[in-house]
Amino acid sequence: MQGEQSQLSMTRRDLLRLIGLSAGGAMMYQAMSSLGVAADSPYKGTPVLQGTPRGASVLILGAGLAGMVAAYELRQAGYKVQVLEYNARPGGRNWTLRGGDTYTELGGDTQHCQFDRGLYINPGPWRIPYHHRGLLDYCKKLNVPLEPFVQVNHNAYLHNSDAFGGKPQRYRAVNADYRGYVAELLAKVTQQSKLDAQLTKDDQAQLLESLQRWGALDNHYAYVAGGRTSNRRGYDKEPGGGLSAKPIDSQPLQLHDLLTSKLWSGLADGENYEFQTTLFQAVGGMGRIGEAFGRQLQGVIHYNAKVTAIHQDDHGVAVSYEDARRPGHVQTARADWCICTIPLSILSQIPMNVSAAMTDAISAVPYAASVKIGLQFKRRFWEEDEDIYGGITATSLPINTISYPSSDFNSKGKGVLLGAYAYGLDAYQFTAMSPEERVRQAVEMGNQIHPQYKQEFENGIAVAWHRAPFTLGCFAAWSDDLRAKHYDNLCQIDGRIALAGEHASYLPAWQEGAVTSALDVIARLHQRVLARGAA
Amino acid sequence: MQGEQSQLSMTRRDLLRLIGLSAGGAMMYQAMSSLGVAADSPYKGTPVLQGTPRGASVLILGAGLAGMVAAYELRQAGYKVQVLEYNARPGGRNWTLRGGDTYTELGGDTQHCQFDRGLYINPGPWRIPYHHRGLLDYCKKLNVPLEPFVQVNHNAYLHNSDAFGGKPQRYRAVNADYRGYVAELLAKVTQQSKLDAQLTKDDQAQLLESLQRWGALDNHYAYVAGGRTSNRRGYDKEPGGGLSAKPIDSQPLQLHDLLTSKLWSGLADGENYEFQTTLFQAVGGMGRIGEAFGRQLQGVIHYNAKVTAIHQDDHGVAVSYEDARRPGHVQTARADWCICTIPLSILSQIPMNVSAAMTDAISAVPYAASVKIGLQFKRRFWEEDEDIYGGITATSLPINTISYPSSDFNSKGKGVLLGAYAYGLDAYQFTAMSPEERVRQAVEMGNQIHPQYKQEFENGIAVAWHRAPFTLGCFAAWSDDLRAKHYDNLCQIDGRIALAGEHASYLPAWQEGAVTSALDVIARLHQRVLARGAA
Repeated sequence: MQGEQSQLSMTRRDLLRLIGLSAGGAMMYQAMSSLGVAADSPYKGTPVLQGTPRGASVLILGAGLAGMVAAYELRQAGYKVQVLEYNARPGGRNWTLRGGDTYTELGGDTQHCQFDRGLYINPGPWRIPYHHRGLLDYCKKLNVPLEPFVQVNHNAYLHNSDAFGGKPQRYRAVNADYRGYVAELLAKVTQQSKLDAQLTKDDQAQLLESLQRWGALDNHYAYVAGGRTSNRRGYDKEPGGGLSAKPIDSQPLQLHDLLTSKLWSGLADGENYEFQTTLFQAVGGMGRIGEAFGRQLQGVIHYNAKVTAIHQDDHGVAVSYEDARRPGHVQTARADWCICTIPLSILSQIPMNVSAAMTDAISAVPYAASVKIGLQFKRRFWEEDEDIYGGITATSLPINTISYPSSDFNSKGKGVLLGAYAYGLDAYQFTAMSPEERVRQAVEMGNQIHPQYKQEFENGIAVAWHRAPFTLGCFAAWSDDLRAKHYDNLCQIDGRIALAGEHASYLPAWQEGAVTSALDVIARLHQRVLARGAA
Repeated sequence: MQGEQSQLSMTRRDLLRLIGLSAGGAMMYQAMSSLGVAADSPYKGTPVLQGTPRGASVLILGAGLAGMVAAYELRQAGYKVQVLEYNARPGGRNWTLRGGDTYTELGGDTQHCQFDRGLYINPGPWRIPYHHRGLLDYCKKLNVPLEPFVQVNHNAYLHNSDAFGGKPQRYRAVNADYRGYVAELLAKVTQQSKLDAQLTKDDQAQLLESLQRWGALDNHYAYVAGGRTSNRRGYDKEPGGGLSAKPIDSQPLQLHDLLTSKLWSGLADGENYEFQTTLFQAVGGMGRIGEAFGRQLQGVIHYNAKVTAIHQDDHGVAVSYEDARRPGHVQTARADWCICTIPLSILSQIPMNVSAAMTDAISAVPYAASVKIGLQFKRRFWEEDEDIYGGITATSLPINTISYPSSDFNSKGKGVLLGAYAYGLDAYQFTAMSPEERVRQAVEMGNQIHPQYKQEFENGIAVAWHRAPFTLGCFAAWSDDLRAKHYDNLCQIDGRIALAGEHASYLPAWQEGAVTSALDVIARLHQRVLARGAA
């Protein structure tokens, strides 16, 4: 069996070498893909829309990532393209709040962001996984530099108000201890021959060897205080140089305390496909991507345009809109086709003559709640006092999350951290408050984890997505049932209208969902245009 | 018990708040430290050497980090300081090779680095852990910007020529599968009441719940193909947008194959204290730190000075040296005191009149072997073809390691990766080759993992530390026995001579070892100077 695999592999490798020698890298990648070396992805590179649209026009609703990807590619392919956008800026949920920015939420509360120069928060998406190839390619194409986003920081905290007397525990300690005890328990039953029914003796020997290394067990397969465990969970006194620099080992938590603390529930986040290393952020804020698209589409995007009705007939699509700043005067934009990227939460309130199936789909999907709060502090105390550089502290408090900035590490001066990323019921609770109260509460709660909060706090800003006028929610919260019933209906081209956006993807909330849904829909629309002729 | 902890914690927090309100951040940190919130560290911030040295002079041997930290601080404290350095540059093993650099190793082989502008390798240290506070503080003080170093990349490979037909496996798959099977096996024995002797029923219930989440087990506590496991190990077809974007789940590896593959041995590296997130590198190459110190110490460091003898008497220290480029003409430098940071591998060959105990210590410690090879490629195929951004591939091949650059992510154009970081016997094997042959072999071996290697390779450079004239080895390879016998003897101040460097620390190979050993030794030396008077 091993021998067969080896031969198969050599053949495969030889084949790849031959392909590589006679063709270029792209060909090599295709070959690697089909041979199973590279993973299959729905993103196949920039779409080449072959064949001319012969003057066909497309009206795109929304200048978020989906709308701008569609506009960028369709214009490239020869379409006449115009985009209507509610906000005064490109990007949609791809958005960075910086000092000097102003934001008015539903209900009329206006916040003026007071962050110092260079500091920011991303109220919307803030992470780019390595496998979001569509988005990464556009970043490369539009020269948007990326830097690592630190998701898991072994020195950040896991915190449960009801465990360990409310004292936050370092991720490294909880992580090492949980893993260590799991390894010890399994090693013990293996030694007691309790796995004889499942594993051969040889496999058991491999398992024991692996558990010892993986779990930092001692020579008796126990997880106990000592050099091995301290080298995972940290030291009571760290090793240093010269005399009196000998390290002092730390004591593992008790297994019972660890299990009842529920802190283990925060251990797997960084193992999830979308949060694995290497994760990225855009240098200077995620909004740099939307801004870069906006520059490409200068003159194509009509800002401050609030869509009020969408109507299609056999000849084309007519969209009514008014100035979002001075409502009342209705204008009409027309085109042969329409790609609508307006979030379903808003689209469901706009008259549009599409099939009952699509209308049902549009109304069916609830939008997830989320609140993000950015807090500026006089100094980066999380780095200076606590050696926390980037990453996330997870807490049972309603703020759910504290995230430390993944930029300007080890720098002097002020910093902005994400003082809350609340979801679910906690998000609704924050949404119900005034912006000022949200910030006040975030400081109050965060102070339970970082006692420096109150002394160092300067100012904050809070975005509750259910009060964002352009989305009325954070992202489409598909359930399996809803998807089975409505997803395909939502994604069909209905006459001359097609939808795109994260809501029309299997990657809800992710920018890549917006990008790949746009690429999917323009490819299908283009086929239809070619089949039917321009008009 | 829980209640007691809670009260204790509130008291502690209240206390911290009071301290924070009435004093500054540094005071708060000291309080946090003593209350156990922050870890104890041998590094206590920049040393303030109080009291005047009244004209005392110190001769420092070696302008590596230890020597330059000592020089920087002692000069600040009022000492007359001079430094003798063998190389023509500051930094020692803190060293970055860039295009245009030239390096001649023992035996006379000279390499001319041909990397394109902006590309580099660090032949020596390349990572800075978040808890190496001394080094981080100097980076801040000297304005050396840092960026994350990606150690664990879930999409890099684990590779064993003898497993899976030699086909490299993605870290994410091996990691998820190993963890999943461990969780499944332990869940099974828990359900079979085989842990009743160790755990209460309540704890067993918590354990089961935690294993399910942590191990991505299904509702029957099994680790099987499905959405949960694909969300860890990756998909056969990834989720996307629009129609036909439905993901296809991947199949876990077989437990037996996984155990016998030994690939699990690469899973714990990123959990070790020194490789945990957040790890850093200096922007532009680790050598930026040495270069920054060098600028601070302009005029203080005498380059190209090869030390040939060190002699002390009651009045001071006299050090003989010659020009490393034109040996023969011996000069003498004198001072009241000497801090010698020359690696033990070289110091053991230089006559020096210190105690027998120190002489024995100097001779006792072997130096570890290591070889690093940098390879320039026409394009960043690891990113473009394989979605690998930074991080490390571990392999059973003698190159041991391939490390992808943690900078300029997603950029166009060429790239340099670390094509080998060999240690132990593998390093000796590479050391025995000519530099050209080392590079050739690294390309040949790496091609087994990345079939693009041969087509894309442009040039390379190889540093074998046992042939580096200024160290004759990579770092002091202390064993527990050696340390018990010799370490304290090595670190004592012997008359007017004291040693510093990574070899005089509990952090061998790490820059922090050099920094903290220097800080430790100057504090002790200063006490002695104050006690004895200047001369």
